[in-house]
Amino acid sequence: MKIDVNSDMGEGFGVYQLCDDAALMNIVSSANIACGFHAGDPAIITRMVRLAKARGVGIGAHPGLPDRQGFGRKEMAFSDEEIVQQVIYQLGALSAIARAEGTHVAHLSFHAAMGNRINRDDALALQVMQAVARIDPRLIIFCQPDTIIERAAQAAALPTLTLFLADRAYDDDGQLVPRGIAGSLIQEEAAVRARVRQFLQQGTVTTFHGNTLPVRARSILVHSDTPGSLALAARVRSEIEACGATVASATEVLAQ
Amino acid sequence: MKIDVNSDMGEGFGVYQLCDDAALMNIVSSANIACGFHAGDPAIITRMVRLAKARGVGIGAHPGLPDRQGFGRKEMAFSDEEIVQQVIYQLGALSAIARAEGTHVAHLSFHAAMGNRINRDDALALQVMQAVARIDPRLIIFCQPDTIIERAAQAAALPTLTLFLADRAYDDDGQLVPRGIAGSLIQEEAAVRARVRQFLQQGTVTTFHGNTLPVRARSILVHSDTPGSLALAARVRSEIEACGATVASATEVLAQ
Amino acid sequence: MKIDVNSDMGEGFGVYQLCDDAALMNIVSSANIACGFHAGDPAIITRMVRLAKARGVGIGAHPGLPDRQGFGRKEMAFSDEEIVQQVIYQLGALSAIARAEGTHVAHLSFHAAMGNRINRDDALALQVMQAVARIDPRLIIFCQPDTIIERAAQAAALPTLTLFLADRAYDDDGQLVPRGIAGSLIQEEAAVRARVRQFLQQGTVTTFHGNTLPVRARSILVHSDTPGSLALAARVRSEIEACGATVASATEVLAQ
Amino acid sequence: MKIDVNSDMGEGFGVYQLCDDAALMNIVSSANIACGFHAGDPAIITRMVRLAKARGVGIGAHPGLPDRQGFGRKEMAFSDEEIVQQVIYQLGALSAIARAEGTHVAHLSFHAAMGNRINRDDALALQVMQAVARIDPRLIIFCQPDTIIERAAQAAALPTLTLFLADRAYDDDGQLVPRGIAGSLIQEEAAVRARVRQFLQQGTVTTFHGNTLPVRARSILVHSDTPGSLALAARVRSEIEACGATVASATEVLAQ
Repeated sequence: MKIDVNSDMGEGFGVYQLCDDAALMNIVSSANIACGFHAGDPAIITRMVRLAKARGVGIGAHPGLPDRQGFGRKEMAFSDEEIVQQVIYQLGALSAIARAEGTHVAHLSFHAAMGNRINRDDALALQVMQAVARIDPRLIIFCQPDTIIERAAQAAALPTLTLFLADRAYDDDGQLVPRGIAGSLIQEEAAVRARVRQFLQQGTVTTFHGNTLPVRARSILVHSDTPGSLALAARVRSEIEACGATVASATEVLAQ
Repeated sequence: MKIDVNSDMGEGFGVYQLCDDAALMNIVSSANIACGFHAGDPAIITRMVRLAKARGVGIGAHPGLPDRQGFGRKEMAFSDEEIVQQVIYQLGALSAIARAEGTHVAHLSFHAAMGNRINRDDALALQVMQAVARIDPRLIIFCQPDTIIERAAQAAALPTLTLFLADRAYDDDGQLVPRGIAGSLIQEEAAVRARVRQFLQQGTVTTFHGNTLPVRARSILVHSDTPGSLALAARVRSEIEACGATVASATEVLAQ
Repeated sequence: MKIDVNSDMGEGFGVYQLCDDAALMNIVSSANIACGFHAGDPAIITRMVRLAKARGVGIGAHPGLPDRQGFGRKEMAFSDEEIVQQVIYQLGALSAIARAEGTHVAHLSFHAAMGNRINRDDALALQVMQAVARIDPRLIIFCQPDTIIERAAQAAALPTLTLFLADRAYDDDGQLVPRGIAGSLIQEEAAVRARVRQFLQQGTVTTFHGNTLPVRARSILVHSDTPGSLALAARVRSEIEACGATVASATEVLAQ
Repeated sequence: MKIDVNSDMGEGFGVYQLCDDAALMNIVSSANIACGFHAGDPAIITRMVRLAKARGVGIGAHPGLPDRQGFGRKEMAFSDEEIVQQVIYQLGALSAIARAEGTHVAHLSFHAAMGNRINRDDALALQVMQAVARIDPRLIIFCQPDTIIERAAQAAALPTLTLFLADRAYDDDGQLVPRGIAGSLIQEEAAVRARVRQFLQQGTVTTFHGNTLPVRARSILVHSDTPGSLALAARVRSEIEACGATVASATEVLAQ
């Protein structure tokens, strides 16, 4: 079985770096690359594209709201049309850099407040996906299973890849337990490994309330922006391999 | 004879607008659209692309340095590689918006300090043009005749379209007289009309020092950012038509 | 009787200008100067301060949220403490430029979304006013009458000056009719003049629904960012003088 | 003997942090706080001011050019007047936040390209210092000895504090050996300690070419933005104390 491991990458700016992208690029099979709005700039994007290409990692767009100071985490009242334009602008910018480097963008994963906004609004999500499909109908949309984004991508005939978050607690409805709540983040190595193993072998997750829930996912998202996230990502990968699965990019996972 | 009329467009930001872009779009045959670094944003770019498409105006990228406060007019010590990355990023962003709107980018015209920098450095100019050619080998490069940019574009097998500035004085070497110097700007309507007529009928310009110089150009650049520029642009167009020439986009001019 | 006329000024950025600030500076007695977050930059601020000083116009801080693209009009989820910090930062920046130019900041008027946010939250408004009072306990706070901002300023022992908007419709509760609603903006010259006269002579306004409401105000806000706003502002001033009142800065109005 | 130890602080932005400011604040006696142009924002500035106040560290303005992407290291062609305005704006912003927190700005140290620009131009340096003196005539200007900035500060009757860079090689003229040259950075702990000791005990430095040069300095600058800089700063401080000197803020050093 092939499973993808993805992470948000290139989320620095100028002299700032948020994580050790070069090291993380050795762990993931798909890189969601910030496109210059909430983070990233042409130099960082180019460096990420080259690293990904050199290591056979799938290149993805990770567009966000135009708010560097707030790192794209703040809600901002843009119109639906403006959101679509911002997605397309960022996707195009990354795509051109990828093409100039002799490679291409394979997937798309929304950042923070931009993703939350799109995932709340069926009409907007469909508008975004239809515009994305006009740019590249083979672009793989990363999403949580059973969400507005997944349905909109399918409606626009775009391929999708669903995510499992090994280090976040799920409630009984399959929703992520909000970050503020104690226990929402799972950081102990043994627990994260156990969750990866359970997901791979049984296709389930044990919820916050102790119930067992099926998880429909083909990619594991590892975080890059917290202390210890690099080590945790490495553990996730080694556990996947210990379970006999193969870490592979989104394109390879969908092709299997 | 077909001749192109081009102008820099969409150089506003947020609530700011630099000129009456909608009115100017009725005059030009090619629009050089700011791409979000020195000016422009996704909403403005989209509006420009729609206006251009609706009026049959050729769409061009007008990339600049990432400096909104200085409007891309200040020299900034970016590396050659960073300049290339900035050009490709902006070209890609505009191209995606154009594609999402059902049209395409036909040409490229550099803005201010970015253009001056590229036009001073053979190696950088070639690097830029080779990267552009990897994105789209049919992109038409707008340039002054007999410049580093023209030669680099030709070396990269990119088509070029050379410019005549009807409202700027030329010296005897064919260089533009710097803006600071009295007489460098020609704003009187009759004078501008006369220059357009001489250029179209005789293919020459009368220099600052009174000599006659051949002008190899197939597009007239009209300015958009000064008071009265809109009226002057309209005069340039009507003079072209009075001379029996046809205003046509860069693509049509090169195809004739 | 002395009455203040104020307007938002210096709301350009780099090459962009939103209105003819120099002309408007001949009409107003108090200038609310953008401080570099939603609009303005050190060069523009300095120009505004010099113009105001030369013409005896009172200098005011006009702080906004750090969002140039949205012109400070979008709600953004900053913490209360961040809002306070942003107000103080901007007030200090303008104050230093004023001092370097041999003058001082006399008043403060919040911009758009920042003002709306503060005006919705008693605790935040008090926190802001207490911080402002630590910077300058004589700073005059411009506000709508009977608002959270007015009460907080009074609680922090800061002087206040209340505003009348001659070109905006009021409802029967004394609230402004929202901009979206037809009739909310009064742009016909005769109507605006009549409202100024009624306000000055009877201290009332005729509401949207035809009732007569007392208006407690000592300054008239004129807008600067719409077409024709300069002409309208001039009409407001001439009507004030035709009524026998004197246009005077906030400091003079409070001292009378 | 009292000697100051200073460092550039608060040079993050939004989620980005450049160094462990809280730890460094335990080592230095003067903090040069970024003011929101090349780095820093109101929230970070406030945090720095509170840390400095709590630990008795002198607060200094560290203004830079308005270029976050380039971290204020790129030359940019601002006019002299614009440079003055940018210094005053940033100094005022920090001063207001300091005052709101019950403390004050004691010194000023220019960042990177802004400092280099001012230090190259006698007329500009004098203009800057005269403007600073109008804001606060007791503000201590940090500078290299025998420089344009030192002379301009003295001409404007501003107090100065001269710097020794323990981890940078000096040439025989007392100039810093440029960073690009091998040996320009001294990173070995024993070497840095020996230089601190020689400076404190003999008032000299051994130059790049092996000669002994007198050093007129009363503050040691420690860097914060390189790996290991925090440990090195701690070594500098412990060596100062091992030499029997006392680490004290600029104000205390000048008062001794």
